[in-house]
Amino acid sequence: MKIVNGVDSSYLKRSVDAGTEEQRIIVKDIIANVKNAGDKALKEYTLKFDQADLSSLLVSEEELEAAYEDVDKEMVAIIEEAAENIRSYHQNQLKTSWMVTKEDGTILGQKITPLDSVGVYVPGGTAAYPSSVLMNVVPAKVAGVARIVMVSPPNADGKLPSAVLVAAHIAGVKEIYKAGGAQAVAALAYGTETINSVDKIVGPGNVFVALAKREVYGDVDIDMIAGPSEIAVLADETANANEVAADLLSQAEHDTRASAVLVTTSQVLAEQVSAEVEKQLSELPRKEIAQKSIEDFGLIVLTETMDLAIESINAIAPEHLEIITENPFELLGKIKHAGAIFLGRYSSEPVGDYFAGTNHVLPTNGTARFSSPLNVDDFQKKSSVISYSEKAFVLNGQKIAAFARLEGLEAHARAIEARYKNK
Amino acid sequence: MKIVNGVDSSYLKRSVDAGTEEQRIIVKDIIANVKNAGDKALKEYTLKFDQADLSSLLVSEEELEAAYEDVDKEMVAIIEEAAENIRSYHQNQLKTSWMVTKEDGTILGQKITPLDSVGVYVPGGTAAYPSSVLMNVVPAKVAGVARIVMVSPPNADGKLPSAVLVAAHIAGVKEIYKAGGAQAVAALAYGTETINSVDKIVGPGNVFVALAKREVYGDVDIDMIAGPSEIAVLADETANANEVAADLLSQAEHDTRASAVLVTTSQVLAEQVSAEVEKQLSELPRKEIAQKSIEDFGLIVLTETMDLAIESINAIAPEHLEIITENPFELLGKIKHAGAIFLGRYSSEPVGDYFAGTNHVLPTNGTARFSSPLNVDDFQKKSSVISYSEKAFVLNGQKIAAFARLEGLEAHARAIEARYKNK
Repeated sequence: MKIVNGVDSSYLKRSVDAGTEEQRIIVKDIIANVKNAGDKALKEYTLKFDQADLSSLLVSEEELEAAYEDVDKEMVAIIEEAAENIRSYHQNQLKTSWMVTKEDGTILGQKITPLDSVGVYVPGGTAAYPSSVLMNVVPAKVAGVARIVMVSPPNADGKLPSAVLVAAHIAGVKEIYKAGGAQAVAALAYGTETINSVDKIVGPGNVFVALAKREVYGDVDIDMIAGPSEIAVLADETANANEVAADLLSQAEHDTRASAVLVTTSQVLAEQVSAEVEKQLSELPRKEIAQKSIEDFGLIVLTETMDLAIESINAIAPEHLEIITENPFELLGKIKHAGAIFLGRYSSEPVGDYFAGTNHVLPTNGTARFSSPLNVDDFQKKSSVISYSEKAFVLNGQKIAAFARLEGLEAHARAIEARYKNK
Repeated sequence: MKIVNGVDSSYLKRSVDAGTEEQRIIVKDIIANVKNAGDKALKEYTLKFDQADLSSLLVSEEELEAAYEDVDKEMVAIIEEAAENIRSYHQNQLKTSWMVTKEDGTILGQKITPLDSVGVYVPGGTAAYPSSVLMNVVPAKVAGVARIVMVSPPNADGKLPSAVLVAAHIAGVKEIYKAGGAQAVAALAYGTETINSVDKIVGPGNVFVALAKREVYGDVDIDMIAGPSEIAVLADETANANEVAADLLSQAEHDTRASAVLVTTSQVLAEQVSAEVEKQLSELPRKEIAQKSIEDFGLIVLTETMDLAIESINAIAPEHLEIITENPFELLGKIKHAGAIFLGRYSSEPVGDYFAGTNHVLPTNGTARFSSPLNVDDFQKKSSVISYSEKAFVLNGQKIAAFARLEGLEAHARAIEARYKNK
């Protein structure tokens, strides 16, 4: 792994695959067809893209039971425990409505309500990610969303992966449909005979899914479009090189465009980690992916002081940040931008990816400067509440009318004055 | 005004001006030029589009002083009082970091930090909207954003409207630049010699501004793209027809595509309001705009019961909702979707537009189903915090490794196991 002094964070920025104009046209066409022909279009696309000839889109009770048979009992218990941890952590994020009352009788407040319905997209393909099901569904459930719908493209045999079905059931999803790609996003946004539309669509997907989400945005809400993933490790001489190397590689194995960065004040650690990464790389099943990621977007940054190291971290605004130093809590206050902050050697990133309870859907590619992990707020909305008393109105009405006239909005001023006339 | 029984809310949905392909190309070109040529491009576009030949982009101390001279002292005091009310209301939204500690030593939490920098776009043109400056700037200030930058297109004489400058100063903006359109958005997103880039851009604008915001989204954050505005009034026989009519018209005067709807259980009120709207319309300075809006998107919905009326309201998911009934608080719990809820006859919409303290940047066109008023959360971001104890790690490490292997992510499992080997 390359070692440099200081870092220009723009070096690590990767382009986000926004899709081509051609792909955009394909997606628009798919959405129009699903809007138009509903289930029929959905099934035709599923046959075409997923080679599955479906009689029913809905996953049946029997399929769910078969999925439970298929997954190791111990594994089911682990998924249940993870779901419980996620639920427990996210409960702390739940906001309540509030109001302030004034002596003149005025009441101002904020009413917080869950979204009515949410659609969760779960990608298909070779790997199944039950953890991603938990991370997207549980916060919606905690927020109080009454209807949570899951969609995922079936395999050619018309089935969804057992572990995904089990995770969905544990998370509390009652409606699961076999549909993927832009066609599933269209069905969630506009509804078909079988699938009622939802108010928000979340979950990762390929470029067609991302383009479709962008296209329906406004008619429904969407979550952020995820970019390539990254980890930054901030470490001093007390860190173990083999642990740091393993953590960097756990990110690198995701994607050739993933990024793994060590920022350290210790030259010894820098050199040891560089060597360890090479050694561990050679023994990884996904070594080709990890190697390309490390070559293109892996970096060890050596700084003279911890303050300079932290400056580098804030410039990167990493999705995942591990702080493995003598006293990591001492540094927490200085970290301005990071999706998730893992403190100390036992807080290896996979602890948060799977189990501790925090969300693994995090802002990528430097967007931690302005974005947050997926959280309960994403599934609630606010309404302002204004109850103006007669007293407050009499006291302030003329000021409000004057402000409206300053902006040339005469009808606004007259709406105020209509009340005076009626007194 | 047309009176109907029950409402299909889709009738009221208006298309959002998403811009043409041609406009999109123009905007992309402007952004590329500003990225490339910085201030020079910015000044050239300002000469071309705003007919202003600027020597300096920054609004000077002298200009600010002159603006104060230009605005009526009483009006300055009203703007100051409104700003204070907005500040006071939004203070209640401020979230704090939190953590939970477990007996085994684990700490999980959420660290909340303000964005570093925010750009506020303020539209130019004939009308100046100082209230919009307050509504966009104050929540950012309350959130703790250190750097708030305002941009607005100058008039042909190279000046910004005095009331806008005064409002910006009162709200606490220290950097104001004379730049508008897509070029100003590009400058905020990518920076020029004079204007440093920001992390988020908020504020309304024309179609070029909206397209530019869409284009830079991802490199920086943006607020929602506002659609046409609307009001719904929910009233029973206790409401005054002339007040309801005045409120409907205060929305209609904004825009020919604004929508104004009365939902009522009272046939008498329905007929009176219909007549009052016609009468008041004829006396409005902006009557042409208001008339077109009422004709195209105005509606009186008559329902047999209050529950059916509320069902209509929730289907519309109005930006502004006024409840003018005998006991409006009784109905608050049943309102699921609305940007701002105004209770009682003295809570006329302009009270919230200008003065009470709630925000007037609200979700439009039915998006209150999933969106919220502009608020302090929009200017803060969250970081998850995970400090796993050795005890928790030893207890759960193998489960985490098993979960990672279930998903085929071997390097994740090995990151966990590296810690065991070192023990």
